[in-house]
Amino acid sequence: MVFTYPRLLGFTIDIFRRIGCPDDDARTAAAALLSADLRGIDSHGVARLIGYVRLHEAGRANPRPKLRVLHETPSTAVVDGDGGLGLVVAPFAMQIAIDKAATCGTGWVSVQHSNHFGIAGYHALSAVRREMIGIAMTNASALVAPTFSLERLLGTNPICVAVPAGEEPPFVADLATTTAANGKLEILQRKGEPAPAGWIQDKEGRPSTDPHELKAGGALLPLGGDRDHGSHKGYALGAVVDIFSAVLSGANYGPWVPPFPAYVPMPTGMPGKGIGHFFGAMRVDAFRPAADFKADMDKWIRRFRSATPVPGQERVLIPGDPEREMEAERLANGIPLVPSVVEDLKALAIKLGVEFPSAG
Amino acid sequence: MVFTYPRLLGFTIDIFRRIGCPDDDARTAAAALLSADLRGIDSHGVARLIGYVRLHEAGRANPRPKLRVLHETPSTAVVDGDGGLGLVVAPFAMQIAIDKAATCGTGWVSVQHSNHFGIAGYHALSAVRREMIGIAMTNASALVAPTFSLERLLGTNPICVAVPAGEEPPFVADLATTTAANGKLEILQRKGEPAPAGWIQDKEGRPSTDPHELKAGGALLPLGGDRDHGSHKGYALGAVVDIFSAVLSGANYGPWVPPFPAYVPMPTGMPGKGIGHFFGAMRVDAFRPAADFKADMDKWIRRFRSATPVPGQERVLIPGDPEREMEAERLANGIPLVPSVVEDLKALAIKLGVEFPSAG
Repeated sequence: MVFTYPRLLGFTIDIFRRIGCPDDDARTAAAALLSADLRGIDSHGVARLIGYVRLHEAGRANPRPKLRVLHETPSTAVVDGDGGLGLVVAPFAMQIAIDKAATCGTGWVSVQHSNHFGIAGYHALSAVRREMIGIAMTNASALVAPTFSLERLLGTNPICVAVPAGEEPPFVADLATTTAANGKLEILQRKGEPAPAGWIQDKEGRPSTDPHELKAGGALLPLGGDRDHGSHKGYALGAVVDIFSAVLSGANYGPWVPPFPAYVPMPTGMPGKGIGHFFGAMRVDAFRPAADFKADMDKWIRRFRSATPVPGQERVLIPGDPEREMEAERLANGIPLVPSVVEDLKALAIKLGVEFPSAG
Repeated sequence: MVFTYPRLLGFTIDIFRRIGCPDDDARTAAAALLSADLRGIDSHGVARLIGYVRLHEAGRANPRPKLRVLHETPSTAVVDGDGGLGLVVAPFAMQIAIDKAATCGTGWVSVQHSNHFGIAGYHALSAVRREMIGIAMTNASALVAPTFSLERLLGTNPICVAVPAGEEPPFVADLATTTAANGKLEILQRKGEPAPAGWIQDKEGRPSTDPHELKAGGALLPLGGDRDHGSHKGYALGAVVDIFSAVLSGANYGPWVPPFPAYVPMPTGMPGKGIGHFFGAMRVDAFRPAADFKADMDKWIRRFRSATPVPGQERVLIPGDPEREMEAERLANGIPLVPSVVEDLKALAIKLGVEFPSAG
């Protein structure tokens, strides 16, 4: 079934209102959440709405957080998310980074006591509209085994770097620091197909191609897959995300990050508060005249986009191309949802007394 | 043959003096260069000294650069390296980042018109000694094919993030954004052994395991290796390094970055000046009290280091462990050099009228 973006947005706003979010926050959260559906990252969009509601029901998400700055310098701040939805906390923190960049050249904000923030790309792109480079990252509950580790100690810990250009659309690198995202594994589980080597290990720590091993106590693997293919680099990148997001802010890190599914027990002995994020904004003209930067960025993008492809491939992509093309398509033609997600959302609508939109 | 660090340092200082570097710059450059040998990254250390001399002889490295700040804000600067050795330009730029962080919380410096700077880790670690997180990256001449590209458009573009801890040694993630460094390929070439899948492609753009294909017109591959294993992520990370180092500063980027070997012709139609770098420094206490940060960082490191290893492995490493252990070993017992490097250095010593140190 296909739904127009405005209808799905209105529905999502209504749901966030019903769990107690103020109107402005409900709109902020819904726009952040649905940006994932628009950009084709279906695993992080409205399919997760019920998960956010369950977090609230379990007392793990505060619908009326008092967001505040715990500490700051001219170019930095630490934000206390007060247990709020990351979908609301993240835009608040990113705005502080942008404001600091406006006066100081750059702004850097680490966040404690937050929750899942949707896709990193949405937050990073809000800086691009101000002629700034935007950076967003977050830690997440541990699903990933560092190189040589039997234990899961890191989340999929995504990083986004979004860079404005001139006539060209922005460059948007938005990547989990694992070989493959969990959402891709779920697709293989449903299809009953094997996973490529290097995506997962089983609960004994052996490389596996069975996509069900993750739920059976196995682990996702860091970008690289194994030591020969540079998994120590993916591990190091995921670790940097964890440190910037949580050790700099006072959030939980490593195996102590709270899980997204409300039925999963909280880790014991948690050293910090909630989940951590990290945001950055760098004014382009804090380095060079914006026109010069944009002209070179256009030249960069055009050179890479016009590169000769390898046999069997049509073209070389610029990071952000596929998501931008998807967004244009879905704004024009609507967002397709799989039947199981529609059923979940209909049940949620009935439970919370919200009207479910008609398709089309 | 094994040489003590002080003897090799004295020799390297002498060589840099002979090509016209002022005494202070010669010492700065030698310390930066030899940090690679100490840390076990032999491909980037004294083995490259002759390469730097050849760059100077070819008129591609200025031994007496006038380093200056082209533009700045409270938290940013762009430095003009005036064609100097990156080994001298990088410490100058990193110091500006550190000074800005001292007053403003963070400092971010993009550099144009520089040259190869040795290993990123050396520069990032200079912030750690000031209780700051240090970041260093550089672009390099194009050896890497982006995902789906037949053409080489990126360098191995390393990133280093170094983080201070309390009682534990610092966390140092120092990684090329490729599956494997060129140095590792050279080892396989010498041994006549095949490379793992995912390291290289041949000149037709087909995956290859022949380590000689790189010199035959092939390319290194981004971290991930192929699309199924996330090479678009390694490509995106390498691209971010290129943009921060060169598009922000006005240096050359993509296929236009000047090569290290002086016999390789310069690219035509270069859009900028020299090679680009990017440095960052973030004061830990611009976010949290330093004692709190360090206590959590120690806890992070100890938890990861004590993780249960997979069968067949002894332990889980913290990024930076192997290099630090190597540094302690080589400071104590000397730096081993392979015969071909010793012969090159002896010839260089004779040519420039410098005494070559005795081994041991």
